[in-house]
Amino acid sequence: MRDVVVVGAGMTRFGKHLDRSLKVLGQSAVESAVDDAGIRLGDIEVAFVGNAMAGIVQGQESVRGQVILHAFGLRQIPVFNVDNACASGSSAFHLAWLSVASGAQEVALVLGVEKLYHPDKAVSYRALASATDVEATPAQAPDARIFMDLYAAWARSYIERSGATVDDFAQVAVKNRRHASLNPDAQFRELIDAADVLGSPLVSAPLTRLMCSPIADGAAAVIICSAERARRVGSRPVTVAASVVVSGADPAQNGASSVARAAGRAYAMAGVGPEDVDVAEVHDATTPAELVALEELSLCGPGQSVELLRTGALELGGRLPVNTSGGLVSRGHPVGATGIGQICEIVRQLRGEAAGRQVDGARVGLTENGGGWVAGDTAATTVHLFTT
Amino acid sequence: MRDVVVVGAGMTRFGKHLDRSLKVLGQSAVESAVDDAGIRLGDIEVAFVGNAMAGIVQGQESVRGQVILHAFGLRQIPVFNVDNACASGSSAFHLAWLSVASGAQEVALVLGVEKLYHPDKAVSYRALASATDVEATPAQAPDARIFMDLYAAWARSYIERSGATVDDFAQVAVKNRRHASLNPDAQFRELIDAADVLGSPLVSAPLTRLMCSPIADGAAAVIICSAERARRVGSRPVTVAASVVVSGADPAQNGASSVARAAGRAYAMAGVGPEDVDVAEVHDATTPAELVALEELSLCGPGQSVELLRTGALELGGRLPVNTSGGLVSRGHPVGATGIGQICEIVRQLRGEAAGRQVDGARVGLTENGGGWVAGDTAATTVHLFTT
Repeated sequence: MRDVVVVGAGMTRFGKHLDRSLKVLGQSAVESAVDDAGIRLGDIEVAFVGNAMAGIVQGQESVRGQVILHAFGLRQIPVFNVDNACASGSSAFHLAWLSVASGAQEVALVLGVEKLYHPDKAVSYRALASATDVEATPAQAPDARIFMDLYAAWARSYIERSGATVDDFAQVAVKNRRHASLNPDAQFRELIDAADVLGSPLVSAPLTRLMCSPIADGAAAVIICSAERARRVGSRPVTVAASVVVSGADPAQNGASSVARAAGRAYAMAGVGPEDVDVAEVHDATTPAELVALEELSLCGPGQSVELLRTGALELGGRLPVNTSGGLVSRGHPVGATGIGQICEIVRQLRGEAAGRQVDGARVGLTENGGGWVAGDTAATTVHLFTT
Repeated sequence: MRDVVVVGAGMTRFGKHLDRSLKVLGQSAVESAVDDAGIRLGDIEVAFVGNAMAGIVQGQESVRGQVILHAFGLRQIPVFNVDNACASGSSAFHLAWLSVASGAQEVALVLGVEKLYHPDKAVSYRALASATDVEATPAQAPDARIFMDLYAAWARSYIERSGATVDDFAQVAVKNRRHASLNPDAQFRELIDAADVLGSPLVSAPLTRLMCSPIADGAAAVIICSAERARRVGSRPVTVAASVVVSGADPAQNGASSVARAAGRAYAMAGVGPEDVDVAEVHDATTPAELVALEELSLCGPGQSVELLRTGALELGGRLPVNTSGGLVSRGHPVGATGIGQICEIVRQLRGEAAGRQVDGARVGLTENGGGWVAGDTAATTVHLFTT
């Protein structure tokens, strides 16, 4: 396997784009990534497209990626439509990495794209519920709340074992919103305080609305290529040091240990340890999930995330800034695009292009993205490590 | 890239399985393939699942593969859901091949699975129509006929340039049904004659119903691994000599030339020529499409398929038996499973396990699978070559 680098990254702002189609969003992100890479559209040899819910929301199945890419002239290359619920984008990235790392292709495009807002809210709920086994889901509860009930149970369990408080969960939301206020691509940018978070409507105790990721529309794209190719064109590459996808929890452990398994393999693959990570984007579908993820990623010891949070280590300027983009809760969570949005943020950080939210001297970045819930297991968990 | 071999193949009968769920069909195919490979379920390190229409037909999106595999205990491995319309199965196979060829994984499962029969026929039609750009499809014609109109136009054009007759198209159906009569896994096995084909209802002139592939339910699975691993366990491996996926027609040529491009690359990759092919499974979504495909695959010269057909070369016992399984028209066409069904047939032929429909001494086999239609281009075309 040869070295693979990211040479281009581009995304739309995440948010409500009722007037912009999947085609328009996808084109915008791809063209930004292509411009950023300094290549031509015709240099792309293969495309991997992550999308989870266009079937339900837009009625487009089967050839989602081709429909988007052909609309602006990207034809005649193999296109693979990859679906893994909220981890669709990063799963597509993994396969693109494999394609270039193996030597099969030289230049690959990864596009994550999703539109969840729909005039009929029931459509959006049904789309989100599709990330579970619909046959096993009670017909009377086919909406997004089942996920939040799971996250709420994990949050209560985390409180018991770590001493975290509901105020801590609010402080994660405040921190990520502060980061988002510095990110022009984020969905929600107005500063909030803990009272705002705690005073927002209860979703599933102890989670309030502002502790939960909103729905969003958006697209994000990256261009990857071999390291040799990047040297030839003089790009500013960011190396893909590890790409790992796993599925399922370890029955002997708690339900979230797929993250730990993926992280362990990623550190081994990259030859770096958690102590080397300078900046991380993690899957904060809810704010307590961010704290749990940091421990599973071994970025701190068991139960120690709270201390990192309380001492400001997770903030910009702290020892380990987390979710500098604003995270799922503030940058937004357009399901199939989320994983690529995370990668765009890390690429910008490692290149020193994150402007007002730049992590000084960041050289090692991590992304963690999770998707789906089937029979007690996480359907897909991905961990990626990037280095300069 | 290292050598990859198929060590196990299994499938359900293709046909109408109203009483069997995707889970039941998938489990049956996977367990057959695992038994055939002589491995344990736990030896599988990664799974690629091809499905195109469960979103519309069963309401299951996002995590289709996980839902099926977890139901019978295949957990904790990365699962990738791959969608490329009628080429979903073979696209998933390509990615699995890449995964093993690159050295990333040792043993991979590919499952193609689909259920198209639905008590409400409109649901099945809508599923088939999803293989196009639904935004560009007239709302008044969202059914399978748009595909058959395209195939009918190609058939008329083929008649003009080759001297083929409508009777030739009927003879392909007769031949493939004869092959299917020898295949216990085929959907339609009763012998038919040309009068039956020509007398069946007109779908889109000159195509009659028996010249068109029916809808079907079914599942097919293969296990692939590295050649070293296969040697260690003493399997009877079939080598994957080439795996190519392309998209789109060449604007300078006619609309089907993606097959020619894919085939050219596949022959180069495998180091074999069309003259070496002993048996082929091609995408006869309609019977004239089989004749066109043989020319695009360079298995004969332009306009010469008809002569092969008329002289019996395409029959069992002839020089180049084509669609010994019965093809899409008689073995059946459960969209996401079709490409893997083709591969199962070639594996059986190259192992000498095709019983009454065995091609004597077959050593080189080819599969060609196509899917989707977007803005004048084929969304995905795959060509695979297998050798003993």
